[in-house]
Formats: sequence, structure tokens, C-alpha cells
Amino acid sequence: MESPKKLPKKFNKPLFVFRIRTEKIFEITKDMIKYIIDSNYVEYIYLENPSQIKNDPLFKDKKYEKYFKQFEAETQDSNICIIIGGDGTCLWANQLYKDKPKPPFFSFHGGNLGFLAIYEPKDFKKIFDELYTKGEYNIIKRKEIKCTVYKKKNYDKDKDDINNFEGYEKQNTYNALNELILEKKKNMSHLYIFLKDKFLAKVSSDGFIASSPTGSTAYSLSAGGPILHNDVDGIIISAICPFSLSFRPIVLSNNVKLRIKNNAEQVGMESEIKIDGNDKGTLENDMFLEIGLSDETIDFVLLKTIQESQDTLWIQKLSKSLGWNYAFNH
Amino acid sequence: MESPKKLPKKFNKPLFVFRIRTEKIFEITKDMIKYIIDSNYVEYIYLENPSQIKNDPLFKDKKYEKYFKQFEAETQDSNICIIIGGDGTCLWANQLYKDKPKPPFFSFHGGNLGFLAIYEPKDFKKIFDELYTKGEYNIIKRKEIKCTVYKKKNYDKDKDDINNFEGYEKQNTYNALNELILEKKKNMSHLYIFLKDKFLAKVSSDGFIASSPTGSTAYSLSAGGPILHNDVDGIIISAICPFSLSFRPIVLSNNVKLRIKNNAEQVGMESEIKIDGNDKGTLENDMFLEIGLSDETIDFVLLKTIQESQDTLWIQKLSKSLGWNYAFNH
Amino acid sequence: MESPKKLPKKFNKPLFVFRIRTEKIFEITKDMIKYIIDSNYVEYIYLENPSQIKNDPLFKDKKYEKYFKQFEAETQDSNICIIIGGDGTCLWANQLYKDKPKPPFFSFHGGNLGFLAIYEPKDFKKIFDELYTKGEYNIIKRKEIKCTVYKKKNYDKDKDDINNFEGYEKQNTYNALNELILEKKKNMSHLYIFLKDKFLAKVSSDGFIASSPTGSTAYSLSAGGPILHNDVDGIIISAICPFSLSFRPIVLSNNVKLRIKNNAEQVGMESEIKIDGNDKGTLENDMFLEIGLSDETIDFVLLKTIQESQDTLWIQKLSKSLGWNYAFNH
Amino acid sequence: MESPKKLPKKFNKPLFVFRIRTEKIFEITKDMIKYIIDSNYVEYIYLENPSQIKNDPLFKDKKYEKYFKQFEAETQDSNICIIIGGDGTCLWANQLYKDKPKPPFFSFHGGNLGFLAIYEPKDFKKIFDELYTKGEYNIIKRKEIKCTVYKKKNYDKDKDDINNFEGYEKQNTYNALNELILEKKKNMSHLYIFLKDKFLAKVSSDGFIASSPTGSTAYSLSAGGPILHNDVDGIIISAICPFSLSFRPIVLSNNVKLRIKNNAEQVGMESEIKIDGNDKGTLENDMFLEIGLSDETIDFVLLKTIQESQDTLWIQKLSKSLGWNYAFNH
Repeated sequence: MESPKKLPKKFNKPLFVFRIRTEKIFEITKDMIKYIIDSNYVEYIYLENPSQIKNDPLFKDKKYEKYFKQFEAETQDSNICIIIGGDGTCLWANQLYKDKPKPPFFSFHGGNLGFLAIYEPKDFKKIFDELYTKGEYNIIKRKEIKCTVYKKKNYDKDKDDINNFEGYEKQNTYNALNELILEKKKNMSHLYIFLKDKFLAKVSSDGFIASSPTGSTAYSLSAGGPILHNDVDGIIISAICPFSLSFRPIVLSNNVKLRIKNNAEQVGMESEIKIDGNDKGTLENDMFLEIGLSDETIDFVLLKTIQESQDTLWIQKLSKSLGWNYAFNH
Repeated sequence: MESPKKLPKKFNKPLFVFRIRTEKIFEITKDMIKYIIDSNYVEYIYLENPSQIKNDPLFKDKKYEKYFKQFEAETQDSNICIIIGGDGTCLWANQLYKDKPKPPFFSFHGGNLGFLAIYEPKDFKKIFDELYTKGEYNIIKRKEIKCTVYKKKNYDKDKDDINNFEGYEKQNTYNALNELILEKKKNMSHLYIFLKDKFLAKVSSDGFIASSPTGSTAYSLSAGGPILHNDVDGIIISAICPFSLSFRPIVLSNNVKLRIKNNAEQVGMESEIKIDGNDKGTLENDMFLEIGLSDETIDFVLLKTIQESQDTLWIQKLSKSLGWNYAFNH
Repeated sequence: MESPKKLPKKFNKPLFVFRIRTEKIFEITKDMIKYIIDSNYVEYIYLENPSQIKNDPLFKDKKYEKYFKQFEAETQDSNICIIIGGDGTCLWANQLYKDKPKPPFFSFHGGNLGFLAIYEPKDFKKIFDELYTKGEYNIIKRKEIKCTVYKKKNYDKDKDDINNFEGYEKQNTYNALNELILEKKKNMSHLYIFLKDKFLAKVSSDGFIASSPTGSTAYSLSAGGPILHNDVDGIIISAICPFSLSFRPIVLSNNVKLRIKNNAEQVGMESEIKIDGNDKGTLENDMFLEIGLSDETIDFVLLKTIQESQDTLWIQKLSKSLGWNYAFNH
Repeated sequence: MESPKKLPKKFNKPLFVFRIRTEKIFEITKDMIKYIIDSNYVEYIYLENPSQIKNDPLFKDKKYEKYFKQFEAETQDSNICIIIGGDGTCLWANQLYKDKPKPPFFSFHGGNLGFLAIYEPKDFKKIFDELYTKGEYNIIKRKEIKCTVYKKKNYDKDKDDINNFEGYEKQNTYNALNELILEKKKNMSHLYIFLKDKFLAKVSSDGFIASSPTGSTAYSLSAGGPILHNDVDGIIISAICPFSLSFRPIVLSNNVKLRIKNNAEQVGMESEIKIDGNDKGTLENDMFLEIGLSDETIDFVLLKTIQESQDTLWIQKLSKSLGWNYAFNH
């Protein structure tokens, strides 16, 4: 018999996000869902696509019906986001919430330990028991790249002054857990980079990256960027195939307002805006982007008995997954 | 006639530090000193070696005699440090103060604009007039690398456990405006790097660098490190000729305590401790270093009319002096 | 009056290749063409599009009519290729010849000295006089990347063995003056690299580059590749944003046969073949590429009085155009 | 009974070179020596220090006495050099021969497979049997860096013209299997680099490296140089901590004569000449170095049944020892 008193409040309305196309992950996700329902840990469960689960033989008993809810960013009241997959699935979960407040994230990996995707799926019973009954955990707070799009009213190409930032209006905001990329379309990308209204450089490349500390071990790393400890309050700017021998990644303080404008000199040189890998349209000549770190964080739950701290996890990832500092003749 | 009322209090006891071996700098320094005395800007002037100045024909008038004082870190009460030379002279000035509190620094360059050495020597009259009479300026606050040396009591080589940090006593503290280097002596340097007491890596190289944001455009840059904006609260670790294809610079948060131990496995592998280029002895097997950013800052005075802000200065240095992002077919 | 006896044989049937869309270049090209006809240097002139020239007022005199011929790779007998534009125009000229034998190239730049585009357009009279009457010149011999496409007969996906190179037939050959790129389409590119039939590595990246010595200062340079002197008989392999911290460019001997296969494990991972920037279709699972340096060279004519040697030109380009080894505080 | 007829001529006068300070290696070396004597494979054996071996109990039998000969570069007639140790021991063996002609090298590793040190010591019986009785093997031909020192007669500092190469006389020649380094002494090293007599660049750094293809996986690799296949006829120039953001390694053709002069502008800036890690004195202001690849090669014997070819060995070293292209989430 279930006792309502025992029902945990804290994480009792989870959103489950998982890679549906990987059968193994789909199977274990269903087992997880069944387990936390049967354990009376949850009131209901949000899903991107409830019918996928509902119709599964595992849930044919009618008692399960009431637990599954369609997730909509605008109306949901989830208090935890449980993820099963790789770091990419975490990014996807993050996108699902759009610009709404996000509950803590709790992430199982899909085979290999990730920087974001931490827990071993097959140990899920022990893990959920601890999560729902112990209530002792650490939090890794991750700041996002926050990109605000400004658009000029009554833009007149012929009167455009690249150094002028007046007459623009806020248009849109995007958050990226890893990075913003301004990617070339057909030809090279040429961008004007400013610290607030002070011109820093024209960067020509195949892509310009503004990365959060979290993103420092993702795309930015492949482009030659440094690795940032999660607690460093900085934004990495790096470039893919820069048209220069002397480009070197820079870590900007969150105090400076990084601004980026398109180079309107030549047509067909506009860049594509990518947020954690997803296209968000073109940086047009009448726009500029302002980039900083978000004030709020995405909180990743760290169970005390399984991963002691963010630093042990990070050290493990650096040496094992990235092969950082792998010595010759190892 | 001198009016004591007009005497500015703020910077009236300067220490002058300059490259004595460059004749041009020595000459202009004497002109500067004469000018600020004649202008009644100072009460007295500290010098590393007062006799060099005193005996100069320029100061043969007896009225100058009382102005020159021998600088001793322990007893001085200087309230500004005026530097004429390159960035290296600024580092030297910093060493002179040992671990005593430092007044603001005010720096003329010796030919080329530096990251630290800013003002044009030949404009010194205008510059001193503004410094001593206007009283409006900005401050660039620069954090130093702070390195604490710990030594084990009753060290027993045979019982040494590399992961143990107990039984050590604080021995010494060094501050570096740019960087600490642990440099190989004859053979390669092998170091154990920890985040507090968690083992991160054994780094084998010709030299291991822990750099402040200020130092990011100095030695660390040549070793492949990223450029850090001055306001980023981070420590760069990089390596000279690492014995690995996969070493990549890391920016650590000042929250983590970086600790470094020698690898005692082989003899003759000890590293030399270098603080802003100066030898400070050997990292012995019974020691470890703890490295962080200093709580206090070194403050560089920025006159409002001459350099608007640290960012305009920084941008100028990046593109002009470093040639950062110099485009092909420029 | 023109004397047929004086007609130079050597370069008397030029192909002119130029950037039509840059008006300045188009204008000077027409002046050049008029000049070499009026100077009786040529028998006729090949053009990609003769009507562009023919109908220009400059050539309204009927005597010019007979000089203009449509260029077709298969039927032409050009004995020099005169190029006006940048390095990109040289690459384009090279593509025009398809796999047919190529005459020497003679290249004017379109504003800035290039590695390939050498001569100052406004000096064309002096330059053509020397070319057509002196007959003394050096030749820079440039080897191309030669890429042969092999396709398996009766490919059976289920029986595919990645290490097997039997049963393939030669399908096509491409030559690249600069480089071959295998570029990701949507997702990351995963390629199996072999030295003949010995497996070297699976390279995951945004693009895999095989560059000639000529291409070492083009795209490969932006991707982190070394600079190769033109006489080094080597192929550079480098990668764009490799999925590894320890990828380092390799210079292969032309003795080893570099072979590349697609990774057929996942769908949607095929790479696009790009030859000097031009799409040449997809590397399918039933194909492999074999890559070496061409036996023949593309010969660039170097007039003795204007550029002494390939080394003076190269040194000039390295320091001036690339800003190679630009010293701090320059 | 041993039959003198069977005595192999080819490799019957080996020099043995080994790391005496590693006890394990010393022990197995003695076993090797005993084995090839007992097997009647050798006429005599050269040693750096015969008494070390002679006096060992293993060789107390008087019959061994006649086999041990003191090695002197000038008088020896060794026809193979058998090495037990790491790549460093191979370099040392190479130095022992000075500038005399060298026999083929045959190398056991001291624990880990090296690029130069190949065979597993514990399998020595099988290996020597094959070497001395089968007579089928491949040869890896390795070109050395050849450095010729020129010194000016009647050098007059005040008349010195950095661009002038006349009036110099050949002084000395050094060969390096891996690399020549011009290393800073106290301060930074400043060097003028020429292609024959054409000035290429002034390189300021902690050390300037000219590496052979063999050396490309040694020190040059740590300094950021590319990996060269052994058959590439090129010299890598790279720099340790260059005083520039835009230094990039260059692979020079052996056709160009690389020349290096000291920068005489400032005192105390001379560089130390290092040949495969050994000091060879200072590059003085009245000298220049000319650097190319040697005409002769050092030949490494490759037994057919154990290592098929230089490429299989090389591939194995790249991935296993260097961890080249180690993929994330491996």
C-alpha cells in the first residue's frame, strides 16, 4: 500500500528525456519509468511523446495511465529533468525548456561516462533509491552562454556604420550550455568582434565559437581552445580554421560585453547562428549579437555516494575520455 | 617658494625603479625626478641606489639632497611606485617590495608600449602634471600568482606517499605578477599535479607554468597558452615541450587549490622554482607547492585623458604588439 | 606592318583566365589582350567566353575578330595559360584543363602578391615584352595531389571488410593543385586511413585534408598544418576540428600509397570530396580513394628580371602575406 | 664442436651498446653476449668497456677472453652495432662512431617498443638465430641532420655584415640522428635564418630545432612540429617557446641550404649547439652553421618474420606509443 506521506515532493514530477532511436536506451528507460512509479517516487512523469510509452506492453496495466503527461515548455511544472543518453541528449533536454526556468538535471550516460551524462544506467535502482530517499547531494552549477540578438530599426545599408550600436532593439535570446557558433555558409565567415563598443578584431574563419566553461571540452576543444574549470567565470572565443597564423583563443571576462556584427562588405558572407548545434537563422547585416554568461545556472545533481564532487568527475573525464596529457610510451 | 598646503599627499613618496643600464632611460629618469621635485609634487623619493642620482651634476644644488632616500622593503612608506622601462622592469619593481604591501604602480615604457609599461617617457611633464594635480584616474587591478611552499617535518623518503599532504609546514611564500615556472634542470621535469588532494596528472615537460591573467601574454603565450582578460579569475597551467601529444592548457578556477609535488622516483629530476624569471631554489622531494591567485592586487594607475580604460589598452596591445589575428594578405 | 617571321612560337596561343566579376581586372585584362595582339606576340587567344571580349568596343576593329577562340579542354592547343586574379583564379584555370596536359602558367595577381599569382598587372607591357622577346625564365614546378577513385564491383554491404582492397575498379581521377578535402556533410566525418593496405587510423573530424606542398600555405595552414617548401616530395594530412586532443599533422612520403575509405558503420556519415574547393560528389561506402603526388608538374613561369627565384618569392610571401614569425613588440 | 665454416661473416664483429646503469638490461645483455659466442656467431665483440663484461662470473671460463675488444671509433672494424636500451641508447651508439662510417644498427628495446629500439630483449635467442642464420631482412634507411660549422677568418666585429657569407672556413661537422638544437643559455636565443644566402627570418625563442624525419617523433614533436614519414626528404624547423604568435613549423627541402647565424646585437645571447642532446659548444658571432640531410644513411636491420616493414612499425608507434589521434570517449 502506498502512503501519500512518503511521497517525495522534491523530484516527484520528472521530465524524462532519452534517445528514442537507440533501442537499448529505450528499453532501460522504460524499466526506469516503471521502477520509479512502482516505488511510489513520482506523482506524474512528463514525456516528449507519451504515446511511445503508454502503449508499451510494460505499461498495459491501467494504473499506469494517469502518470504520463505531455511535456510543453510553457505549461509544465517539472521539478527534475532525468536524462538517459550522451552529452548531446543533455543539450537536447536543455533546448526543450526553451527560455523557461529549468529544474535540476539528473543524467544517465548512454554507454560512456560523459561530462554531463554521469550515471551508469544499469545501476538505476540503487541510484533512484538514493535520489528519492536520501536527499543528500551536491550540485554542479553550470553557466550558459547567453546570446541576445539585436536588430536595427529602419536599417539603411548605405548609412551603416560598423562602430555604431545605437538604434537597435532586442529581438531574441538564446541560451547555449556548450557554445554558440557563427558558421560560414558557402564562403568564409568574416565577423567584427567588439568589447562593448570597442572594436577588437575582424575575424575571418570557417566558424567563430563563443563557449561556456562547460563547452570548453566540446567543440571549442577541437578548434584548439583551452579547457576551463567549471568555476571559471569566462567565455572562450576560438575560431575554426582562422584565416591567420596568429589567432589564439582568448578567455574573456563576463564583465566585458562581447558583441559581434556581420561584415557587410561582401554579399554571401553572412554566418549561420548555431546554438548547441541547432540552427537559429542567419546573422544579418542589420543585427548584432551580445554574448555573456547567463545569470542563472543549470544545476546537475551529484549523488554523494556515487560521485564525490565535480572535481573527481572532471579529473576522470580529462584523463580517461579526453586522453589529456597522455604520456609518450605510456 | 614652496607652499606646504599645495603638496599633494597621495603620491608624494614615490619609489623610482628604472633600467640603469640603458643610458637613454637613465637620462630621462633624472629629468623626471628633477621635474617632480621642482614642481613640488613630492616630499621625498625612494631609490634602489640613491648615490647614482645624488652625485649627478643635475642635482648638484644642495636643495636636492634631502629628497633622496634609500629604499628598503621593510622600512619604506612609499605611496606610489614609478617605473621607467619595459614590462620586465615592472616585474623587478614588484620583486623589490618582497611580501610587503605595495602602493599603486605607475609605469612608463622604455620604447614600446607594454602590457604593464604604458606611458610615453618623453611626455612626462604633461603626465606628471595630470597625475599630481588632477587626481582622476582608473585603476587596473592585477592579481598575482601566490605560491606557498610547504615542507614536511621529519621527511622519510621510504615512507613517502605521493597522495599524502599531512605533516607539512608552511615554509615560504612567493608572489608572481606573471608566472611561476617549474623548470627542468638537466633532464626532463616530472611533476605531480593535484587539485587540493585529488591527483590530476603527472606532467613531464621542460617546464610547467602557472600563469596569472597578466602573465597570459608573457611566457605562457609562447608555450601555447590562451590569452586571459584581466578580469578572469583564473590560473592558466601550461607546459613547455610537454612529453605528450595531448597536453592542452587548462584554466583553473581560483576555487581549486592547485598543488604540485616533485616526482621522487628518479634522482636528478627535481625542478627549479622560478618566480617572474627569478630563481627561488629547487622543489625538493619533501616539499609541495600550493598555488592560487593573491587576494590583494597590484594596482596600475591609468590616467583618464591618456588611456581611457584597460580594455582600449589591451586591445591595442593584442593587435599591435602581439600581432594577434593578423590576417593573411593583410 | 607585321612580320610573320617575328612571331614567337613558344607562347603564341595563350589561354586567358581572369575574374570577370571584378571590373578592374576585366578592364586591365582587355588592355593586356589588345597589347599582345597589337604587339604581334600571339597567333590567337583562347577564352572561356570569347563573346565577352569580342563585343567590347576596344576590339570593334574587324582585324581582332580572328584572334578569339572558344576554349575547350579536349580540343585546345594552348601553349601558355595567362591568369589575372588571385590564387583562386589559378586554381580555377587549373580545373579548366581537366585531366589534359597543361601548358606553363603565367600569373598576374589581382591586387596582392599571391603564392601563385605573382606579377603586378599594371606593369603588363614590360612583363609581356620580356616574356615574348627575351625568352629567359625560371620555372617553378608544382606537384599536384592526384586522387584516384576506386569503386567495388558488386558491392555487398553485409560482406564488406574494411581492410580489403580487392575487387575495386578505377573510376575517376582528380588533380588538386592545393588540396583534397573530405568534408563532413551534416554530421562529423569518420574516415579510415591506410598506408597502402595497412590500417593507420580512424580519423573523426569536420574535414580531412590531403595537401600538396603548394597547398601547405592554403587551407591546410588554417587547419594547423606545417608549411612545406615546394621541393619537398610530401603530402600533408591534417584535420579540421579533429575529435581528438592528439591529432598532429603528418607529412607522408609519396612512396606510401595513402588510401581512404568511408566508415560504413553509421548512415549519414559520408564525406563530400572537394578538389581545390570544388565539390566532386560523395565518398560512398563502396569506394576508396588513393592519393599521391602527380608525376607531372604544373609549371609556373618566373621571369628572371622580376622575381629572381622561387625562394625569394616564397620568403617574401611567408613574412609579408602570412606574417609568419611576426615578433612580439615588432 | 663448432665448425669455423659455419661462422657467419656478415655481422660477426658486433659492437654492443647498452645502458649499464639499468641492472635488468645489463643482465640480459650478458646473456645475449654469452649466447652469440656460444652459438659461434661472432669472431669478437666490441665493447665500450670490456672489463665490465670480462670480469663477470658468467665469462670466467678462459675461452671467452679472446672475444672482448675495446671499441675505438678510429680503429674498429665492427660490422653491426647491437643496441639494448631505449631510443636514447641508439643515439648514444651513433655518437660513439663519431664521423666514421657506421655498420647497420640492430636494436633491442629496454622495456617499451621505441621508434629506433625495436626488439623484445627476452626473445633474444630466436632473434639472434634468425639474424645470424637466415640472412633475410629489410633495412630502414635513416638520414641524419648534417651540421657543418663555418668560422670566419680574421673576424672583425665592427665590419660584420649579417648577410655576408664570404671569408668563412669549414671548422667542424656534426651528425644528428634526431635533431640539432640551438638552445638559449641564460636569455632568449635570437637567430638569423637563411636559405643559402637569402635571409628568411630572425627567430627569437628558447631553442631552435632542425630535425630529421627520424627526429620528428622526438623533441621536435614536443615543440609542436609535424610528424614526417621516414622517406620524406625534408628538414623540420621548429622553435621552443617562440617569441611570436605566428611561428609555424616549416619543412624545408634538402635542396635549400639552411644557414644559421647568431645575432650579434646583444651580448649574452649566444646559443648552445646541441647534437642529439649533447653539448657541442657555443654558436659564436664569427660562425655560421649550414644544415642539410646526410648523404649516407644509418641502416636499421628489420628481421622479416618479426617486423614486416618500417610502415607497420611506424603505425604501431604512432598509435600505441604516441597516442596519436586518440579519439574522445575511446
